[in-house]
Amino acid sequence: MAERAMTESKGNWSPLIDIRIVEVGPRDGLQHEPAVLSIEDKVSFVNDLSRSGVAEIEVGSFVSPRAVPQMADTDQVFARIDRRLGVLYSALVPNERGWERAEASRVDKIALFTAASDRFTQRNINCTIGESMQRFRPIVSAAKRRGVMVRGYISTVTHCPFEGPVPPSQVLDVAKRLLDLGIDELSLGETMGMAAPTHIKRLLDELLRHIPAAMLSLHVHDTYGLGIANVLTAWAEYGLRTFDTSAGGLGGCPFAPGAAGNVATEDVAYALRIAGAAVTADERAVVAAALKLEPVVGHPLASRVSRVLRKDLPSDVRCEVVP
Amino acid sequence: MAERAMTESKGNWSPLIDIRIVEVGPRDGLQHEPAVLSIEDKVSFVNDLSRSGVAEIEVGSFVSPRAVPQMADTDQVFARIDRRLGVLYSALVPNERGWERAEASRVDKIALFTAASDRFTQRNINCTIGESMQRFRPIVSAAKRRGVMVRGYISTVTHCPFEGPVPPSQVLDVAKRLLDLGIDELSLGETMGMAAPTHIKRLLDELLRHIPAAMLSLHVHDTYGLGIANVLTAWAEYGLRTFDTSAGGLGGCPFAPGAAGNVATEDVAYALRIAGAAVTADERAVVAAALKLEPVVGHPLASRVSRVLRKDLPSDVRCEVVP
Repeated sequence: MAERAMTESKGNWSPLIDIRIVEVGPRDGLQHEPAVLSIEDKVSFVNDLSRSGVAEIEVGSFVSPRAVPQMADTDQVFARIDRRLGVLYSALVPNERGWERAEASRVDKIALFTAASDRFTQRNINCTIGESMQRFRPIVSAAKRRGVMVRGYISTVTHCPFEGPVPPSQVLDVAKRLLDLGIDELSLGETMGMAAPTHIKRLLDELLRHIPAAMLSLHVHDTYGLGIANVLTAWAEYGLRTFDTSAGGLGGCPFAPGAAGNVATEDVAYALRIAGAAVTADERAVVAAALKLEPVVGHPLASRVSRVLRKDLPSDVRCEVVP
Repeated sequence: MAERAMTESKGNWSPLIDIRIVEVGPRDGLQHEPAVLSIEDKVSFVNDLSRSGVAEIEVGSFVSPRAVPQMADTDQVFARIDRRLGVLYSALVPNERGWERAEASRVDKIALFTAASDRFTQRNINCTIGESMQRFRPIVSAAKRRGVMVRGYISTVTHCPFEGPVPPSQVLDVAKRLLDLGIDELSLGETMGMAAPTHIKRLLDELLRHIPAAMLSLHVHDTYGLGIANVLTAWAEYGLRTFDTSAGGLGGCPFAPGAAGNVATEDVAYALRIAGAAVTADERAVVAAALKLEPVVGHPLASRVSRVLRKDLPSDVRCEVVP
């Protein structure tokens, strides 16, 4: 399987099977930053990202404003962004009320959220994995009727903060249940940032026996610096081509204890391109977009590539249209 | 070859074939920091590192103080450190005068410096690769007579800032010439930090046909965030077990344009351990040692693991003896 996928990934990609970057900075990134951005800053960030060559942008989350104040105004952000043809705009939806808001905001795609570990699911969304499936069922049906795509997040795919190591079979079980509901794409969330390529391989060896690589996205955090190694392994050895990343590595503050940001979009784009992949996301445009937020989030960007590129960018950073 | 090495690396390591961390922070790290440390700070850093479980410490460089002011007092640092049994203390030696100083300082090992690219060698040490070999010959002979081990650095093993991509055959040629001189170990320097695992594989596929993995160290920089991916590839797929790293990722300032520090010791130790390797270097002790220098170098440590661990370390950080 790995051998086949590797050969496949070394072939000439058609434009339709380029690397797909799912930019989660505006949601997963900003949600974990202590600073709360203005609507204007969020809209400007999404618009800049729309011109950076990413395939998809997770704009926000239709959760309760009390639960996540950083995401309180996702409806208004959707109302004001300039939607660029060819870019998908998605949002996290926790329940039917969230779906109604997402529908009203004309999202292209919704994301539902569960985990491979029951204790994590309990702590995170206050229900069991089984209960989360029941909660998803009417939302998936409604979304399907409206032609809205559905992504399913599976967190803790290798390690759970409460249960420890998570066996791949447990992830496969949840994945199958999500696919049975009619979900279009699964995002494999390595929540702790503790997995090495060996763990990712064990997971993908199991999943790819049952699920095509094209239905999977890998969502890793760079807590311990393993993010890029895991992305490269999933691409080169298993043919995954969709990766969830965050511009500037937003979400982890370099000075906050245990900061665990998403792996940075620009680091992933650079690594995959130099490894031989066809990547449309442009590091310079991504870094320029994230740098504008540096004064707002109040700390330097965590990514490696931003440290190299910032010297080359004009002090009045601008995002350019990527062809 | 890769298959065999992989199997080998998954076996049970004896204590003699654990991962060997060559801590180059006091030399390669501090040499590239704008701040110049006091002798006391350097001695304290080396002593802390001696208790962290690393196999070898590159203490300094016997270069001209005019050329590299950061390394001006390497003789005095050697005179004052507490040498710990089981740890090798080495230094960079550029010429016969440097060798005399190294000998007087009772170093365990010297390191000689060349590159796989002639233009880089010219710019860096002002001679051709061939001339560097002539310069090394009497030094290697003298070192051998005194029972001092010799390491040979080969820079620009995949990319050269002046010549671009460097073919593996060119690296092999330089490697063979160094081994012919009687050099004990080669350190493969990926100077630019631009290599992806694909480049490292191409290089090691060529070298390991002629040179045992045990004679090679991989020396990578984390400029674009590819360091850990390259280390894991060299270990898991080729059986390399010696890696040059820098505590705290010293050598690259997070706020300096194009900063290109060595890959951080603690990030490598963590990644290899979680991938299944036997690693004696202790991340907590390494981070504690590097954190003491933060006020002196004037910027936060660049490593990922230090961001996670700093919250757990007492504010008066101390290095503990690692069993």
